[in-house]
Amino acid sequence: MSILVLGTVALDTVKTPFGARKHMLGGSAVHFSMSARLFTEVNLVAIIGADFPQKHIDFLHKKGIILTSLIKDKGATFKWVGEYKGDLNTALTLNTELGVLSVFKPYVSTEQKDIKFIFLANVDPDIQMQMLKSMNQPHFVGLDSMNFWINNKRKSLLKLLKEVDIYVANDQEARALSGESNLIKAAKKLHSFGPEMVLIKKGEHGVLFYSDKFIFSLPAYPTDKVIDPTGAGDTFAGGFMGYLASRKKINGETIKKGLAFGTVAASFNVEDFGVEKTSRLKINDLDKRLKEFKKYTFF
Amino acid sequence: MSILVLGTVALDTVKTPFGARKHMLGGSAVHFSMSARLFTEVNLVAIIGADFPQKHIDFLHKKGIILTSLIKDKGATFKWVGEYKGDLNTALTLNTELGVLSVFKPYVSTEQKDIKFIFLANVDPDIQMQMLKSMNQPHFVGLDSMNFWINNKRKSLLKLLKEVDIYVANDQEARALSGESNLIKAAKKLHSFGPEMVLIKKGEHGVLFYSDKFIFSLPAYPTDKVIDPTGAGDTFAGGFMGYLASRKKINGETIKKGLAFGTVAASFNVEDFGVEKTSRLKINDLDKRLKEFKKYTFF
Repeated sequence: MSILVLGTVALDTVKTPFGARKHMLGGSAVHFSMSARLFTEVNLVAIIGADFPQKHIDFLHKKGIILTSLIKDKGATFKWVGEYKGDLNTALTLNTELGVLSVFKPYVSTEQKDIKFIFLANVDPDIQMQMLKSMNQPHFVGLDSMNFWINNKRKSLLKLLKEVDIYVANDQEARALSGESNLIKAAKKLHSFGPEMVLIKKGEHGVLFYSDKFIFSLPAYPTDKVIDPTGAGDTFAGGFMGYLASRKKINGETIKKGLAFGTVAASFNVEDFGVEKTSRLKINDLDKRLKEFKKYTFF
Repeated sequence: MSILVLGTVALDTVKTPFGARKHMLGGSAVHFSMSARLFTEVNLVAIIGADFPQKHIDFLHKKGIILTSLIKDKGATFKWVGEYKGDLNTALTLNTELGVLSVFKPYVSTEQKDIKFIFLANVDPDIQMQMLKSMNQPHFVGLDSMNFWINNKRKSLLKLLKEVDIYVANDQEARALSGESNLIKAAKKLHSFGPEMVLIKKGEHGVLFYSDKFIFSLPAYPTDKVIDPTGAGDTFAGGFMGYLASRKKINGETIKKGLAFGTVAASFNVEDFGVEKTSRLKINDLDKRLKEFKKYTFF
């Protein structure tokens, strides 16, 4: 089944100990798409500004991403400037230029409204809700957010949590929103806010999945070639949701395998800047690394 | 095969958000013994002071620990006072009273010198080396240390690393000794210092194992009942080394299974104060939790 992702399309300027890039293609919806496209058709809902290079649009098109609902507005494309130091676990935001994002009203074409798999990547929770409400009977909805919304739009976020099937958060966000420091307690608390499933991303330490039916955890895929972790979480979500959308059923088995696919997809993302590695991936690359991953964690 | 552990026998005073204990039985060698005893005969090499309660000696004896080389000296038993706050991931040391530990010269009885499996739990690296040198041809030697020795006896520690088969460190120690922030790079660097195998303990995030032959990782066993994590690392090492000592071969398969046993042993340790839970364990409890653990991380 097709998947629809609402999120950002951005121009990222990133500096890490291994190099730097200026105004490269980035954003949550883009990173999500790069892994999800390996499993299913991806429909991108986002906004760009007048300054957005045509080559990036051509690139996304060539990667098979459906751009019907990528709207262009006057003004500047959303820009993020960040730096990573040391172990590259934490991004230091140097500058954020919202540009057209500040006037973003998501557009979804009529036929896209029937898409059953939805991922609400990180944007304002009011925008996420607005788009979700415009959809016809979605079947499975994933939600990502960030600390800024947890602190500044908590009410909107809590309302939205009642409408989604899975909430995806990093460990810091999970602790902040739940008020619990133990991650399993945090997951239980977030689950009590509404979503049937909670997925906590722990960066280099892997992921923790929680639902009423089971708890599951995976370490990260081992790589010592961490060049740029920007977008790893969205790449993870894209692999996970993309795989689920490609299956007939969502059950324990497909969720676990989806988490494993998300993990290996994210491991490719960190190995180069932006989407430089993930945009070149074929499904075979994921399959191959999934096999390696089993050796790495099955006892 | 029997195992010999050099380490501390301590009286721990611990406060956590869930309660407090005064002068309870603790120390690296004790925590190690509680899990290793489930797999093999454990010989404890340590020192206690004149104030050490007889009931603790009786208790260790009842648990089957061989106390031939537990020496008693004038002076006070090693005492540690610590507190855990928040997510209980970091111990705050409020006080350390070395007592007899400051004059410790390990004694190993003649027949114990033939023991092939050795674990050098955290004490002064010079004392660890001295005892190791007194052994007749050990077959497999594990080493633990701590930040204090990394900072203050780095040379002794580096010398010792050339003599052991596996170095066990937590993530902070691994980073400090290697100078690398990425944990896989840190493991590689530590491996280059001598030991064939490196094991990095990441607390609630599980473990990372590194050798020339393979890399392996496991998440922690999921528990939201973290009461007192003191000794979790030594309990892990005891489960791991104890299992290996009980096998005929040390190979990829037994190492992976040993790491899984160490993980579940450590998960029991954190669920109550000191050795209150681990001292009551039977091997069946570990087997049962190992099965649960598979469900929790196999995809």
